[in-house]
Amino acid sequence: MAPPLKVCIVGSGNWGSVIGKIIGENAAENKMFDSTVYMWVFEELVNGRKLTEIINTEHENVKYLPGCKLPANVVAVPGLLDAARDADILVFVMPHQFIRETCDELKGQIKLSSIGVSLIKGIEVGSYGLKLISDVIRETLGIEVSVLMGANLANEVAAEKFCESTIGAANIEHGKILKELLQTRNFRLRVVEEADAVEICGALKNVVAMGAGFCDGLGYGDNTKAAVIRLGLMEMIAFVRLHCEGLVPDSIFLESCGVADLIATCYGGRNRKIAEVFAKTGKSIKQLEEEMLNGQKLQGPQTAIEINHTLKLQNLVNKFPLFTAVYQICYECKPVSEFVKCLQDHPEHK
Amino acid sequence: MAPPLKVCIVGSGNWGSVIGKIIGENAAENKMFDSTVYMWVFEELVNGRKLTEIINTEHENVKYLPGCKLPANVVAVPGLLDAARDADILVFVMPHQFIRETCDELKGQIKLSSIGVSLIKGIEVGSYGLKLISDVIRETLGIEVSVLMGANLANEVAAEKFCESTIGAANIEHGKILKELLQTRNFRLRVVEEADAVEICGALKNVVAMGAGFCDGLGYGDNTKAAVIRLGLMEMIAFVRLHCEGLVPDSIFLESCGVADLIATCYGGRNRKIAEVFAKTGKSIKQLEEEMLNGQKLQGPQTAIEINHTLKLQNLVNKFPLFTAVYQICYECKPVSEFVKCLQDHPEHK
Repeated sequence: MAPPLKVCIVGSGNWGSVIGKIIGENAAENKMFDSTVYMWVFEELVNGRKLTEIINTEHENVKYLPGCKLPANVVAVPGLLDAARDADILVFVMPHQFIRETCDELKGQIKLSSIGVSLIKGIEVGSYGLKLISDVIRETLGIEVSVLMGANLANEVAAEKFCESTIGAANIEHGKILKELLQTRNFRLRVVEEADAVEICGALKNVVAMGAGFCDGLGYGDNTKAAVIRLGLMEMIAFVRLHCEGLVPDSIFLESCGVADLIATCYGGRNRKIAEVFAKTGKSIKQLEEEMLNGQKLQGPQTAIEINHTLKLQNLVNKFPLFTAVYQICYECKPVSEFVKCLQDHPEHK
Repeated sequence: MAPPLKVCIVGSGNWGSVIGKIIGENAAENKMFDSTVYMWVFEELVNGRKLTEIINTEHENVKYLPGCKLPANVVAVPGLLDAARDADILVFVMPHQFIRETCDELKGQIKLSSIGVSLIKGIEVGSYGLKLISDVIRETLGIEVSVLMGANLANEVAAEKFCESTIGAANIEHGKILKELLQTRNFRLRVVEEADAVEICGALKNVVAMGAGFCDGLGYGDNTKAAVIRLGLMEMIAFVRLHCEGLVPDSIFLESCGVADLIATCYGGRNRKIAEVFAKTGKSIKQLEEEMLNGQKLQGPQTAIEINHTLKLQNLVNKFPLFTAVYQICYECKPVSEFVKCLQDHPEHK
């Protein structure tokens, strides 16, 4: 790959548009990158106008990031292959349920020398074990894939409020290129090699946030919530080590993708919020998804199902009392009032 | 030391009384300990009655922990030497400014076989370098001293809300005895050997909490606060490693004394609260101490002074931009609005 590198953002939702803004601004100034950045936009009509046309004339994603101007060098493209065909860097950012069909369409149609980076949070578990989103991209497209995860609520990043994030890149050269592409004065990056660990943290935190929300709903205070966050972090670490090859050092969990993202998610974030309402009202997760998310699935409970499935297969349920309690409370009618009781015999305190 | 071990609690403020409740209940049931627990109470009159007399008849510290019954086997003793002379275990829990005179009075008057545990938060810096509270006790009394630190806001522990804490004990046998003495169903303990690291964390967290409070006062969101907490944690780790002998593993900072206490202090706690008001009103720290703490000194700014002093001596100010910014904002008229700017060139992001 020789500069200037062409960049394509595969996705244009809320987080995708924020990342488009950052990449557009950096690409306009950094000669390492082609100043024109393509953003694939799933075409839809907004007040009778095409969304791509609105973005390319008004430089604003009025549907998913209203009120925030995008740089003029970010060009919305309705055709996935048109946007991605010549890219040297592919930035994947979309809800995880769309990644397989997107990759299937890209397969064989992109530069084999291109590098990928996934900003998508979520894991899948099948009878074969754990599958990461980056695995799906890597296996389908045959390219190397890094990840970016951190304490990054999208609207705050859009407002250029100071924050950090973590690039997980097994290929350190790719990590350096991606840091050049993505870091700004208010979006500070660190690069680590343990990409799988970074990615799994991004999914597991939502399960812990459910526990934090239960605590809030049950009226526990700061001590209990801090203990839930810490015990959740210890279960995240144990789970990552079960599912990653090689040694994963503790330091990874002290990165933004670990402890910082967990904190932000356990105090802000919709998993915490809905778990609080769940504990206070006794409504089911399904009912709350309908009432509060227009029927969209909440990530924490979904991930709790996937985790519980793999822990059962491995006969390890007892080693993860917090993850297990969240699953049982969400889906097996365990009373939420018993949540903290599940932590009193935690293996951490043996 | 042969069972039953006699226990003396040296101090009877808010946290001391909560610990008295826990120790009293455990000592009453565990044959390892003498069921009578002495609590040294600095005698004072409350509505014309002696505080010791109130505690010993009504079993409540009406001044410092009103509304919470103490077990009847916790006996308030007004004479320090009477309380401590025969003790096998001395539990130090008082504001740190009183520890030197207390130890001076105990010197030569206690069992040399006794073991100490300090629950006192604070550090001192002199021209000789850093001095821990446990060092003061150890050097004055000639006994081994462990520490207990964690995410433990006193009133929540008193209300028996689930939480965790960390025992730092260089002598692992002492750690085991102290865990027997202090752990309950809702106060869960882990023991680590790196006692100095545990103790320093307990002091430094208040400096980070000032930064978290500035963020709140300036209207930053969850991302920025999570970044401040994480960068603060990284400075805590670097500072601990500068001042502790031997290798301090990352895992120590994942204990309750590390990340959990930091989280609780950066969301609850009075350092955060006063820092928020400081940022919003522009009043000085001194003025806020007078208005909000009856003139009592706030720990975070005090510790920031001590840290800044030692960092200057070691020419390391630039490696600790968060600690330094808190100091300069509190005492050198640096505008609080520049706090986040101080983090944009943090060595973590190099």
